[in-house]
Amino acid sequence: MAKLSEIAAWIGAEPVTAEGDVVRVAAPEDAGADCLVFATDAETLAAAMASGAGAVIGPLDSLDSAREGKPLLRVKHPKFAFAVAAQRLTPDRAPAGTHPSAVVVQPELVGEGTSIGPFCVIAPNVRIGRNCQILPHVTMYPGVTLGANCIVQSGVVLGATGFGYVPDPKTGEYVIFPQQGTLVIEDNVEIGANSTIDRGALGETRIGQGTKIDNLVHIAHNCVIGKNVVIAAQTGISGSSVVEDGAVLGGQVGIGEHALVGPGVILGGGAGVLSGKKLRGAGEVFWGRPARPLKEYLRSLARLKQR
Amino acid sequence: MAKLSEIAAWIGAEPVTAEGDVVRVAAPEDAGADCLVFATDAETLAAAMASGAGAVIGPLDSLDSAREGKPLLRVKHPKFAFAVAAQRLTPDRAPAGTHPSAVVVQPELVGEGTSIGPFCVIAPNVRIGRNCQILPHVTMYPGVTLGANCIVQSGVVLGATGFGYVPDPKTGEYVIFPQQGTLVIEDNVEIGANSTIDRGALGETRIGQGTKIDNLVHIAHNCVIGKNVVIAAQTGISGSSVVEDGAVLGGQVGIGEHALVGPGVILGGGAGVLSGKKLRGAGEVFWGRPARPLKEYLRSLARLKQR
Amino acid sequence: MAKLSEIAAWIGAEPVTAEGDVVRVAAPEDAGADCLVFATDAETLAAAMASGAGAVIGPLDSLDSAREGKPLLRVKHPKFAFAVAAQRLTPDRAPAGTHPSAVVVQPELVGEGTSIGPFCVIAPNVRIGRNCQILPHVTMYPGVTLGANCIVQSGVVLGATGFGYVPDPKTGEYVIFPQQGTLVIEDNVEIGANSTIDRGALGETRIGQGTKIDNLVHIAHNCVIGKNVVIAAQTGISGSSVVEDGAVLGGQVGIGEHALVGPGVILGGGAGVLSGKKLRGAGEVFWGRPARPLKEYLRSLARLKQR
Repeated sequence: MAKLSEIAAWIGAEPVTAEGDVVRVAAPEDAGADCLVFATDAETLAAAMASGAGAVIGPLDSLDSAREGKPLLRVKHPKFAFAVAAQRLTPDRAPAGTHPSAVVVQPELVGEGTSIGPFCVIAPNVRIGRNCQILPHVTMYPGVTLGANCIVQSGVVLGATGFGYVPDPKTGEYVIFPQQGTLVIEDNVEIGANSTIDRGALGETRIGQGTKIDNLVHIAHNCVIGKNVVIAAQTGISGSSVVEDGAVLGGQVGIGEHALVGPGVILGGGAGVLSGKKLRGAGEVFWGRPARPLKEYLRSLARLKQR
Repeated sequence: MAKLSEIAAWIGAEPVTAEGDVVRVAAPEDAGADCLVFATDAETLAAAMASGAGAVIGPLDSLDSAREGKPLLRVKHPKFAFAVAAQRLTPDRAPAGTHPSAVVVQPELVGEGTSIGPFCVIAPNVRIGRNCQILPHVTMYPGVTLGANCIVQSGVVLGATGFGYVPDPKTGEYVIFPQQGTLVIEDNVEIGANSTIDRGALGETRIGQGTKIDNLVHIAHNCVIGKNVVIAAQTGISGSSVVEDGAVLGGQVGIGEHALVGPGVILGGGAGVLSGKKLRGAGEVFWGRPARPLKEYLRSLARLKQR
Repeated sequence: MAKLSEIAAWIGAEPVTAEGDVVRVAAPEDAGADCLVFATDAETLAAAMASGAGAVIGPLDSLDSAREGKPLLRVKHPKFAFAVAAQRLTPDRAPAGTHPSAVVVQPELVGEGTSIGPFCVIAPNVRIGRNCQILPHVTMYPGVTLGANCIVQSGVVLGATGFGYVPDPKTGEYVIFPQQGTLVIEDNVEIGANSTIDRGALGETRIGQGTKIDNLVHIAHNCVIGKNVVIAAQTGISGSSVVEDGAVLGGQVGIGEHALVGPGVILGGGAGVLSGKKLRGAGEVFWGRPARPLKEYLRSLARLKQR
């Protein structure tokens, strides 16, 4: 529970004159009097005001709250403010500590405040920072490093053997190329359920600070993912590719080996980047297989549809 | 083991005059005298009759069994009848009860007859219906509801945190949008190995009665999947999308956010549905990325191949 | 640690006159004096020679090692020789034995020298060959057979129920087609993290000797995968398809039901093979959805880009 005046302080809203407090966030259609909701424009504001919510976060140009009949916290970025308020109101985290069923080979390498769930396997030489949340069934192979404040959802496999083989020239049988490198994950990274990130073959695989990874994503050996990158579900990134800071990858994107996705590049869902290809341009959208600038790709699609 | 006359009763076949019984189902090439096989047309019937099987389920227009030398159970839908007979003959299910290694926070919320395998993690406030089969290594996050007669294969993650973030306008760092909703799975749903279904952000994610989901499928927060939907392997459905009753999704289909797949729509393997797009038409086949009516898509492919 | 003369013998290099020994393999940029590196041509050889490495495996036409100032082991296939040397120098394997937390129903069916990690579930009638490495959280359903020298990464699910349903003609509800077959995996197969391979419906699913499978791959019921096949991450193969010896499948490939990929065929990343389609030609590259010979596909792409 928090007073509206506290919430206003958290999110930098104008001081609220109305008294009152809320317990949790909600969508307008489910909101009760103890709920905080948000609106981003006139239409959603009307819905929020008509809802059962106890208070509303709205945009700066919202009408005066007194006229609306419900306390209104006005901010420049209502959705962001709502997310911040939600995290303070109802932090969604497990209590610190390691579940007794987990196998943690060197507990002295686990930071304070970190929670490790049932049936996790944390191999030797794994270092885990403070205040991480490791959900059930996570496996970390030997030597993995995880920064502070990371969240690793259930079933994630970190640091598994990479997929690199060399055919025997005589028999065609494959011999594994050495997969003896490491995996380093920086602070504030979040990884979705059942995703897999392999360790480097000889060097390291690295995931930059603040990067968010969805479910069932695959990141191969020796990839370097920058800071604040967003990677949606079922995307796969092949060995030794680089995705730079602030890039956004849609779902089911496929990236070949030794490719480069430059800072701030946006890849539409299902886009494919060829091995060795370099895509650049902050805010530029690429789409299709192989990925091309959005306008060019849409032109091709349009021509295909012509009779 | 069952007598042929019993099986005839189960599947609604004409009464069988021949004596005899069978123990299990098989494919014709592996069938022994204790096996039941099926045939759907003249060609497969010949193979079935030439096999070592003890009895055959065949189509209504099959010749008289006496002439064929092997007991023949004639029905309108032989493959369906065979599936029904197999379920009765050799039900493939684990005995009821919870493996001692499983972590079930509130066992009083688990229905009778349900089986929970080794190393499952069933968090607080999870409700599980009767006669479910939960295979090993399944994780259910807090608050998930699972109906009766569901089958959840190994490694499935139900109710994980959805993937929704809001960038901090000042720093570009991402803050999670609240993921505090629920996941409701209705009766008779089956979910394949290592699939993931996230809980709602604020509202709920819902999987309708009788829906069947293959391996490595991803269903995001706030999706609503109807009844008797079929979703093949590695398909991904982004946040807040709706798939209505009886739709059939091939493998590796990708569906954007807030899209709608209408009742009975069929999506070919690898098809992609754009965010916000609505596809309708029971029995209509859509294919390609972006998905278009099959005929139109095939025309485009043909034109692409021309010199 | 090994003497250079020993390593020369392992890899069939010319005898080395220089004394010395190395401890491990490395990439040139990370190599210390105790490290062995490799080079495949003049450019990488220069980098290797300029590195801190203690010795270099290089191609046959490398200049004389005395002139280069660093011991040089000359072979026809340096990368292959490096992989072989790495395996001998620093074998990356867990010690034999079963972790006490694992559930192994019939330990008498597990071969000598095999390692089974924490929280594995090995059901009844599962046979595992010698010297396998089963990483944590692997599930093997009843009746699975795994050959010798296999490596199964964390989270893999072997032998789960296949995805085959028959609609009830009256209600549209789905009844499962019997999934009572088996899964046989031959010797020297390696399977990446969180991949899933289903058992046969009535017959068997089979993975041939020496085949290597990456992370998050799905192989459906009744598939037959040949020997020394390579399958990259997130590829999916639908029911009853056949992939013959020596084929190479890129990442995110999708193969329909009852398709055939002939011996030595190469499928580019993201390629799609239609149900029932047969692709043949050792060394032939197919690409696109639907997959076509590479030249033909590239021609289509080029035409699409024209204004």
